[in-house]
Amino acid sequence: MATIVFFSVNRTAQTAARRCLRSRLKGLASSGESHLPLSCTHSQSGTFLPGTRWFSRGSSVRFMSHGTAGRTAAGRTRRGVLVTAAATAAAAVAGFVANANHFQRAEMATKVSPVAEEKEQEGDILERCRGFMSAPVTDICVLQKREGEMRTRMEMLIMETQADFCKALEKVDGGTFKVDRWQRAEGGGGISCVMQDGKVFEKAGVNVSVVSGYLTEEAAKQMRSRGKVLKGKDGKLPFSAMGVSSVIHPKNPHIPTVHFNYRYFEIEEADGTKQWWFGGGTDLTPVYINKEDAYHFHNTLKEACDKHHSQYYPDFKKWCDRYFYIRHRGETRGIGGIFFDDLDSPSQKEAFNFVKSCARTVVPCYLPIVYKHLNDPFTDEEKDWQQVRRGRYVEFNLVYDRGVKFGLATPGSRIESILMSLPLTARWEYMHEPAKGTLEAEMIEALRNPKEWV
Amino acid sequence: MATIVFFSVNRTAQTAARRCLRSRLKGLASSGESHLPLSCTHSQSGTFLPGTRWFSRGSSVRFMSHGTAGRTAAGRTRRGVLVTAAATAAAAVAGFVANANHFQRAEMATKVSPVAEEKEQEGDILERCRGFMSAPVTDICVLQKREGEMRTRMEMLIMETQADFCKALEKVDGGTFKVDRWQRAEGGGGISCVMQDGKVFEKAGVNVSVVSGYLTEEAAKQMRSRGKVLKGKDGKLPFSAMGVSSVIHPKNPHIPTVHFNYRYFEIEEADGTKQWWFGGGTDLTPVYINKEDAYHFHNTLKEACDKHHSQYYPDFKKWCDRYFYIRHRGETRGIGGIFFDDLDSPSQKEAFNFVKSCARTVVPCYLPIVYKHLNDPFTDEEKDWQQVRRGRYVEFNLVYDRGVKFGLATPGSRIESILMSLPLTARWEYMHEPAKGTLEAEMIEALRNPKEWV
Repeated sequence: MATIVFFSVNRTAQTAARRCLRSRLKGLASSGESHLPLSCTHSQSGTFLPGTRWFSRGSSVRFMSHGTAGRTAAGRTRRGVLVTAAATAAAAVAGFVANANHFQRAEMATKVSPVAEEKEQEGDILERCRGFMSAPVTDICVLQKREGEMRTRMEMLIMETQADFCKALEKVDGGTFKVDRWQRAEGGGGISCVMQDGKVFEKAGVNVSVVSGYLTEEAAKQMRSRGKVLKGKDGKLPFSAMGVSSVIHPKNPHIPTVHFNYRYFEIEEADGTKQWWFGGGTDLTPVYINKEDAYHFHNTLKEACDKHHSQYYPDFKKWCDRYFYIRHRGETRGIGGIFFDDLDSPSQKEAFNFVKSCARTVVPCYLPIVYKHLNDPFTDEEKDWQQVRRGRYVEFNLVYDRGVKFGLATPGSRIESILMSLPLTARWEYMHEPAKGTLEAEMIEALRNPKEWV
Repeated sequence: MATIVFFSVNRTAQTAARRCLRSRLKGLASSGESHLPLSCTHSQSGTFLPGTRWFSRGSSVRFMSHGTAGRTAAGRTRRGVLVTAAATAAAAVAGFVANANHFQRAEMATKVSPVAEEKEQEGDILERCRGFMSAPVTDICVLQKREGEMRTRMEMLIMETQADFCKALEKVDGGTFKVDRWQRAEGGGGISCVMQDGKVFEKAGVNVSVVSGYLTEEAAKQMRSRGKVLKGKDGKLPFSAMGVSSVIHPKNPHIPTVHFNYRYFEIEEADGTKQWWFGGGTDLTPVYINKEDAYHFHNTLKEACDKHHSQYYPDFKKWCDRYFYIRHRGETRGIGGIFFDDLDSPSQKEAFNFVKSCARTVVPCYLPIVYKHLNDPFTDEEKDWQQVRRGRYVEFNLVYDRGVKFGLATPGSRIESILMSLPLTARWEYMHEPAKGTLEAEMIEALRNPKEWV
């Protein structure tokens, strides 16, 4: 189903420790590579065990910031990686600062009544890994050792989300995702799945990244500016960041573009206290308004939100409209969905359960819309209008998206992962203004005045 | 030849003063509009006389900052215009600050031996105006009154450059430019000429703008940070800014994209002292390397520079390569040309003569290359590669170009003029890397390691 691209490096070190799980992992990676990218170094048992032996060309570090797919920061040198990891986390944090409402929201979240926690039926880690697009970023033996920890549960969730979504897209398209995997010596890495010029999808990208490192003083300063007092040991704060992120651009102008991103942060203070929070969202960018689609999309999100708090959907819907706003055009990027950040309440478990509910709505939010319009006929004019809207998508992503801006500004970033959110093709027409009463004008109107779809 | 688009507003005020030059101006605008956008208010004779009666839809202010076409800032309200004008000038100034070498360059320029000044043969203002794409932004009677002033000479030069270039492009393409003209109540405005989807040109834009207003304290602060101490009256500094700017994207991948921009700033201090400087440049962005074209382009620029100072070409060539650099790709936008800013020496006249020499090389730099490749056959693959390069052009303009970034961030900007520098179509392919030994790889190599073409 998927082509897995591995690059073997540092063969001398490989031979030293390739024990744990080797036999049990047989069949996990799809193509039965002779060098599985999975290993355990028992010399550091109980600690984070980076997969230092297997990583893709240009070892790099990458994780998702908020708002769009492919927020990437990569470092090619040891120093570069540290700087990048720190700065990347800082950028993710900057999102809060930029959003005037986040404190209120965080406070609101702390007032949420705990919902009845469902019994986790997450199942055996190894078994679940078999369904992924690639082995997880973190060694499986490490994930097994710290099974109950949030970073493990989140990594499993984002890997699962990537796999479920990719498989659903492959099924409808008939094509296959190209899977690029990379790791970095210090721990962490990413898995990019891209399908380009398929039957249904012009460009589809689904990224996972799991990164850990230290926050620099600069990043810590940015942390503090969001109101969290963080005390590092010798000015350094260990952090862990992970996320799944995706942008899908279909060919048919009657199938909308979708984007989602779910992420988790953890920062450890000098006294061992852990600060953590979740962020994410799913949003739709149609070329033409279809009220049924809009209702289905928003209602699916609303139902997921309502299971956790009745204010989540209305608040996060508004936040989404505010975030995905192309200021110089006076219009939103699309018809929204939900967007949230800084979610650190009412409890870690409940926040995770909410994120899990959101992540699991991705397929039911989007795929029914894809199938519905799969064979819709379209004209050259409709395709042109799609291309103009794609141009606006590029404008948002390159001009406003905090993750993209930060990624591009970070030396050694994996540019291809950052910019895979851009469409295959786009168009800019001078003074393009749809005539009144047209479907194109109806679309513009909805972008200029965000609607309630549910 | 050109379609002139006028929007008539404030008709009540129009009738009051429509005397001066009216009869003499007959035939100036190409299509003999019944409402010429030219007038003089004699009640304020001897002062700057804004054309308050005729302006395009959405009165706005616009001028060129450095580096690319269409740097625009527009204000829809009185307050907006003031803020914008000030901020726009600030943005233009920010360019210097960003460039580490500008002080050295300015100092270098002061050491230039004055070249023998040619007798200006600029001719009669009214006569020259007849050849323009539109009436100048400033009322002709005002231009005539202050004929010897630099702002008049510069406005005439940029109008002439716009007309010469547009006419040369119309001749080769067979199409006509759409001319949009706008003015703002406080004085100044712009003229945008755009030809889209022509026979030869995918998108061709040539902008002129002439703006005046006041610098705010914020802008003045930015001014001071470039080392100039400016004392305003009550914290306000009257300024004047004008420029011509153009980006041409041809259809045939064997005809390169060209960009140029020439601009002039003037700021008046409380004691009446005027600070002034010029900036500008011309640069080429081919899809494939053609050494003959590169030599012709650079050598034409070098000859223009050499008439004024032997260090101009080598220094401004390097500056161009540094400015048009897509950092996240590690490549320049194109094969360069010249770029300079903060030019305030050895004298105003000599600096103007240099800018005039540069502006007059635009047609001889570019048109021979267009004619040479007019009928070059090309493949789908070559067209695709052009589209990928167009994507990089978009990346530079939206991510790095200071003028575009500033224009987009300014409320009330005329977005269409800022973004007319974007190509009609562009493409982003995931992990696109030309194979070794191909012409595409040769292009990339020249962008990664800027060459000496002369």
